Amino acid sequence: MEFAEFELTKEFRDRFQKALDERDDAFIYSSLEEVNPADITSLLYEFTSEESKYVLNLLSLQVRARIIKDLDPETRKNFLSIYSLEELTEIINQLDSDDAADILNELPIKTSEEIIAMLDPDLKSQVIDLLRYDENVAGGLMAKELIRARANWTVVECIDEIRKQAENETKFYSVWVVDEHDKLLGRVELQKLILTDSKTLVKDIYDDDVTAVETYMEDRDVAEIMRKYDLESVPVVNVQGQLVGRITIDDVVDVITEQAEEERQLMSGITEDVEEDDSLWRNVRARLPWLLIGIFGGMLSARFMGFFEQELAKVTAIAFFVPLIQATGGNVGIQSSGLVVQSLVNPDYMDEGLWKRLTKVFSVALLNGLLLSLIVLASTYVFFNNNKLPIIVSFALFCVVLFSSFVGTITPILINRLGFNPALASGPFITTMSDLLGLTTYFLTVQILI
Amino acid sequence: MEFAEFELTKEFRDRFQKALDERDDAFIYSSLEEVNPADITSLLYEFTSEESKYVLNLLSLQVRARIIKDLDPETRKNFLSIYSLEELTEIINQLDSDDAADILNELPIKTSEEIIAMLDPDLKSQVIDLLRYDENVAGGLMAKELIRARANWTVVECIDEIRKQAENETKFYSVWVVDEHDKLLGRVELQKLILTDSKTLVKDIYDDDVTAVETYMEDRDVAEIMRKYDLESVPVVNVQGQLVGRITIDDVVDVITEQAEEERQLMSGITEDVEEDDSLWRNVRARLPWLLIGIFGGMLSARFMGFFEQELAKVTAIAFFVPLIQATGGNVGIQSSGLVVQSLVNPDYMDEGLWKRLTKVFSVALLNGLLLSLIVLASTYVFFNNNKLPIIVSFALFCVVLFSSFVGTITPILINRLGFNPALASGPFITTMSDLLGLTTYFLTVQILI
Repeated sequence: MEFAEFELTKEFRDRFQKALDERDDAFIYSSLEEVNPADITSLLYEFTSEESKYVLNLLSLQVRARIIKDLDPETRKNFLSIYSLEELTEIINQLDSDDAADILNELPIKTSEEIIAMLDPDLKSQVIDLLRYDENVAGGLMAKELIRARANWTVVECIDEIRKQAENETKFYSVWVVDEHDKLLGRVELQKLILTDSKTLVKDIYDDDVTAVETYMEDRDVAEIMRKYDLESVPVVNVQGQLVGRITIDDVVDVITEQAEEERQLMSGITEDVEEDDSLWRNVRARLPWLLIGIFGGMLSARFMGFFEQELAKVTAIAFFVPLIQATGGNVGIQSSGLVVQSLVNPDYMDEGLWKRLTKVFSVALLNGLLLSLIVLASTYVFFNNNKLPIIVSFALFCVVLFSSFVGTITPILINRLGFNPALASGPFITTMSDLLGLTTYFLTVQILI
Repeated sequence: MEFAEFELTKEFRDRFQKALDERDDAFIYSSLEEVNPADITSLLYEFTSEESKYVLNLLSLQVRARIIKDLDPETRKNFLSIYSLEELTEIINQLDSDDAADILNELPIKTSEEIIAMLDPDLKSQVIDLLRYDENVAGGLMAKELIRARANWTVVECIDEIRKQAENETKFYSVWVVDEHDKLLGRVELQKLILTDSKTLVKDIYDDDVTAVETYMEDRDVAEIMRKYDLESVPVVNVQGQLVGRITIDDVVDVITEQAEEERQLMSGITEDVEEDDSLWRNVRARLPWLLIGIFGGMLSARFMGFFEQELAKVTAIAFFVPLIQATGGNVGIQSSGLVVQSLVNPDYMDEGLWKRLTKVFSVALLNGLLLSLIVLASTYVFFNNNKLPIIVSFALFCVVLFSSFVGTITPILINRLGFNPALASGPFITTMSDLLGLTTYFLTVQILI
């Protein structure tokens, strides 16, 4: 029994690098023997492709395939380019159909066609079927490996079928019951199979209250269904209701994790799937677009303030409160859009209708705006010697809170309706919008009240 | 077989409300008969506690318990307050130990003590054991229901044990093998049990390469281990290595989802676990703290700019570029902290050391800063008639990009070291910091260069 995790320390990495440089196979082999393949995957990120390949060749073909399966797609793409067609075929033959299809999808079309032609016949037909689906739908997420039983089979026949499938190390939780046209009828959990007399017919024990998903359902919807109904595996059917595959919870956990990561990036204003340790140029490029939008917004603001040069020259203190207005607008905008994104992402919620939602948003903004502007009114009276300015600033602040709430609420809804990820609206986009809005409000107030 | 999801429409809700008002039991019962309990849970959010209780009383005790288990804790707490001790005991007796403990934890201590005293003996001792653990560690996440087998048992004896446990509808994936002191030795997957001859001894087939977690491990670490190693269930052991419970993947999916939600809230500057349809006051309160910090920052900025009143009066155009500087500072800060939070949240990454990280961050900032300030330099020359200003603005912008990158990188690391969620650093906090930093840089540049 092993405890928790293998820890990748700097010392171990350096010792391992030394072993690699010296081609010290004994050390490499013995230090990895007891390590979970998933941890070896993490280790490989520290070495060059050639070094990684050298390490993998010391391990069994099965472990090698498992490790390559776990690599992140970007790294894997580069890494596999140093493998020959034969080596790739050998590795892919070890994988479940869904993982095989994922890897083939990443390879250049010519390479993947050539490999498919050389695959084991069973896997080959499964993979060809899977490659038809987009990777973001149930069909692209499912695996073809499953236990299929007829309703008129006995429990013994089911067990024989499991024995046949058990050669490859795939995990099964259920036996799926189909009719003579392969239409899904229901399922028998392994647990039930164990407890039932071996001569019993499947039709007498199967559970027909099964939730299935169709091949074209989006992966995030599949994830939500599995989470909501606490399913460890879900059958996938085609439009005719025929059983074509199954999705297990571990694949869905990956979908949920990736979704959270994508959202975090959108909210931080980073455009590409980039990580801190990616290349310098990739990091620069991922950040530039939103920064440019911000710069563009800033230049617009500057031009806009230019129209009020006279007022500014008369009362310089007007300029002092630009940061206050701008920051509050940005914060309110981000808060509002954050909340909307949350309810858009959580499909449990029922659409209340736009008006009901806006009424609520406005009530919150009204209260917050009132509280904040009173605080600002009081403190500007205390700190700044001017009669009109406190009124102008606090009134403009009140309006900014209202407007930014509105924009922060409406933008993610619009972006979502246009078919994009609403989290896009929660980052620098909303800040730039709020900045411009805030300034306009402030200077219009200045012009009217001064 | 049912397809995908029950859809909660406004029409259905209104029709249901009418049935409720008229106490039309036949309609209520027939419309819910085929609906998954998880969907009935979503429906209940639309009605008052009394109405919900009325609906639940029309359903079987088992379904009732399942629905209450799925409610979100906040709603459940209010809802259960209208139940009597006897009713609560009856419901909790239907639950698995982990869900029972969660609900008991939410009740007032006196109520929960009284219920525990009335629980079925088995569940009672399990729940008492579980209540010792904090809800954010493995011990608080685990359930006590599991199949425990001795190494010297035969497969038949294992199956008998499963039969005993199978009364309550708990799902099992594995049989856990222990020695005479209850120390965990390994596991047998149900799949393997099915394929093995019934007289075989457990010790000849069990897999000793099992990853276990200890009771005090944090829930997010448990989630990460289950994700990384693709586990559908993980055994929990105490410090003596004795098997005390098991955690299944569905509980961990909930942990991951909640984590993503918490992060989104922190990044949006919302302090409480609040949703759009929560009460007005709760919404106001959740937003105020960060807004106040923003206001405080804004007032500080105003005071600070006051020191440069003379310069501003002389060259009003200085004020024009305050929004540009502030927005860029904020955007760069959010991007940098977003990336750091990402690698802090993803434990796969190896700590490169602070210096290596900062070097990278600085290189990216240097490049981005250079590009942006060149763009600003060019456009200010074109749009504004001033010789010095373009140089001042673009130089300040360059410095702001550098400084904000630094602050955005260092803040989440500090917050993480202090034991808080680093996502806290990715929202309005970093924006406020960047604003102040940006202004200071800008006006110092103004003072030096003008």
